[in-house]
Amino acid sequence: MPSPNSGATPRGGPGTGGGEGGEFAAIEALRRRLPGPPAGEVWIGDDAAVLGPAEGRLLLTTDMAVAGVHADLEVLSLADLGWRAVAAAVSDIAAMGGRAGHAVVAVAGPPTTDLGLLYDGIAGCARAHGCPIVGGDLSTAEEVVVAVAVIGHVATTPGPVRRAGAGADDTLFVTGPLGAAAAGLRVLRARASGVRAGAARAARTAGTGTAGAPRPGDEEALVAAHRRPRARLAEGEVARLAGATAMVDVSDGLLADLGHVADASAVGFRLDEVPVAAGATSEEALGGGEDYQLVVATPDPGGLLAAFAAAGLGLPVRIGRCTADRDERILGGAPVPALGWEHAWRPPSAPEVV
Amino acid sequence: MPSPNSGATPRGGPGTGGGEGGEFAAIEALRRRLPGPPAGEVWIGDDAAVLGPAEGRLLLTTDMAVAGVHADLEVLSLADLGWRAVAAAVSDIAAMGGRAGHAVVAVAGPPTTDLGLLYDGIAGCARAHGCPIVGGDLSTAEEVVVAVAVIGHVATTPGPVRRAGAGADDTLFVTGPLGAAAAGLRVLRARASGVRAGAARAARTAGTGTAGAPRPGDEEALVAAHRRPRARLAEGEVARLAGATAMVDVSDGLLADLGHVADASAVGFRLDEVPVAAGATSEEALGGGEDYQLVVATPDPGGLLAAFAAAGLGLPVRIGRCTADRDERILGGAPVPALGWEHAWRPPSAPEVV
Repeated sequence: MPSPNSGATPRGGPGTGGGEGGEFAAIEALRRRLPGPPAGEVWIGDDAAVLGPAEGRLLLTTDMAVAGVHADLEVLSLADLGWRAVAAAVSDIAAMGGRAGHAVVAVAGPPTTDLGLLYDGIAGCARAHGCPIVGGDLSTAEEVVVAVAVIGHVATTPGPVRRAGAGADDTLFVTGPLGAAAAGLRVLRARASGVRAGAARAARTAGTGTAGAPRPGDEEALVAAHRRPRARLAEGEVARLAGATAMVDVSDGLLADLGHVADASAVGFRLDEVPVAAGATSEEALGGGEDYQLVVATPDPGGLLAAFAAAGLGLPVRIGRCTADRDERILGGAPVPALGWEHAWRPPSAPEVV
Repeated sequence: MPSPNSGATPRGGPGTGGGEGGEFAAIEALRRRLPGPPAGEVWIGDDAAVLGPAEGRLLLTTDMAVAGVHADLEVLSLADLGWRAVAAAVSDIAAMGGRAGHAVVAVAGPPTTDLGLLYDGIAGCARAHGCPIVGGDLSTAEEVVVAVAVIGHVATTPGPVRRAGAGADDTLFVTGPLGAAAAGLRVLRARASGVRAGAARAARTAGTGTAGAPRPGDEEALVAAHRRPRARLAEGEVARLAGATAMVDVSDGLLADLGHVADASAVGFRLDEVPVAAGATSEEALGGGEDYQLVVATPDPGGLLAAFAAAGLGLPVRIGRCTADRDERILGGAPVPALGWEHAWRPPSAPEVV
């Protein structure tokens, strides 16, 4: 949340209109759309936010969203970009099994940027996750960039769930179906080009589940998954308390993120069946990022399922298991290429990097 | 610090070379140039950093530096840009009287960006301030953007020093001479255009001190102040412990930042003499930002001076006092324009905002 604090130099910023002082007017307008602090805390409006004593361990993460890279503004609004930036950072807290604490948001963009719209998304996502925006910065730039930093809290015992820690015989779960966000982008682009999205691109990947046939409502759910993703904070905390040994959020794509767990834990994996979001393709489920479902490794699959049930959460889906051979990466009975498999699928929004 | 964590999507980033996987190689290379965590903590390489239990109150702030806006890359290196971004955020912690804790850094830029150089500056500044980089994100963008978030810690009693809190008769101090950073930019630009910088632009502002005549070594000190500013962490903490009632760092320019204190504290001010860095102009001292000296209000000037002396710090300089009339803003006996005075001086690096 931009504020005259945080070293924001009064050199104008997006949407500030003419003159340096415009930044402060813009900041005041933005501040009014965000909730204020409880007694004893200081949020927006000083050099730094002051927060109450932290319990347990502190988590800290940051994510940056760049227009055209992380959000296609041909089919998304600035509000979506803001929402997605916050969700991505909060999801990192979820993936450690932590509780979201507070966030700061630095925004850069051209002076014509509709900050009100951008902050609608930022504020809405912060509210949805119980993670108040307590400060920020605002700057001029040629393109819209949103950088979100989030602190979170987690108990000391059981402590944060890392990527490292999965055992050679642990069972692998995912907290829900995958591919919705990638499919949602496909739907949005098809709509934008006047083509009704359907199941035409429902390519299958052997042994990895089937793309659900499009049903009424599917498309809207897919679009919502892309525009307004949610971090799985409750699921992450329950998994931590239930003894998860390793966890990651699916932000880069299942295979890429599971690869991070396997690398960090020095294990291999064998995947059997991956749940595919209704209307999404298997390709989207395996390679599409930004679903923010959690991948969980545990030596106690029954305990994990029971804990989710007791918490009233949708049950996680078993997708396979870890193996002792760290070079083994099997998908539906066939090896995932040992090298370069991260690159096997390129999301439609990925720019070519030269 | 970019890392596969923090939701960094594998879509390439600055300096990552060809292909999505390049990001991870770049991250590993960058990680090696940063110090690692103590036992029990997790820094770079997971979804979020895990930090030890925090003492007292937690501070959180963010600052963003955009190439061409916050740093003129015609005369500064990427290392300078990185340093300055970290210093600006750490300075916000200093301005609350806190201790720097940890930082995360999100970087965006073109694929050709020399990340090694950029991270030399980021890592160097983090080291200089005892504020380790514990995570980050990396993205492609058309221009170089660095967003730094810093957490800090401060005791509950005496608590963080806010902008609000100055009393109507408090004495105002600044922790050192001003204008060095702005003058340093002038020197760098003069050198770049082949013109030897001198005292030619040493315009005077009535009653606000005199620009020191350039002496041997002055120019290098000015250039260093611009390229490698330091946050006044020790000074801020001593001022807090000595009973400072309000504090702000000079990041936007003395008049602008003192205006924030006056607004927040509902007081006026009368400034007598402002210390000008040797080789800087009075104009640069009053309006130039990014010196990161601290402005301190206190009802006990003797106590503040004694505390600085006891801590072995350079003594703060008395510049004036607060007044009860919140509309009174006097500089050297003449009124500072009540409206628009923030705009009275535009630093050479400020772009026009339309």
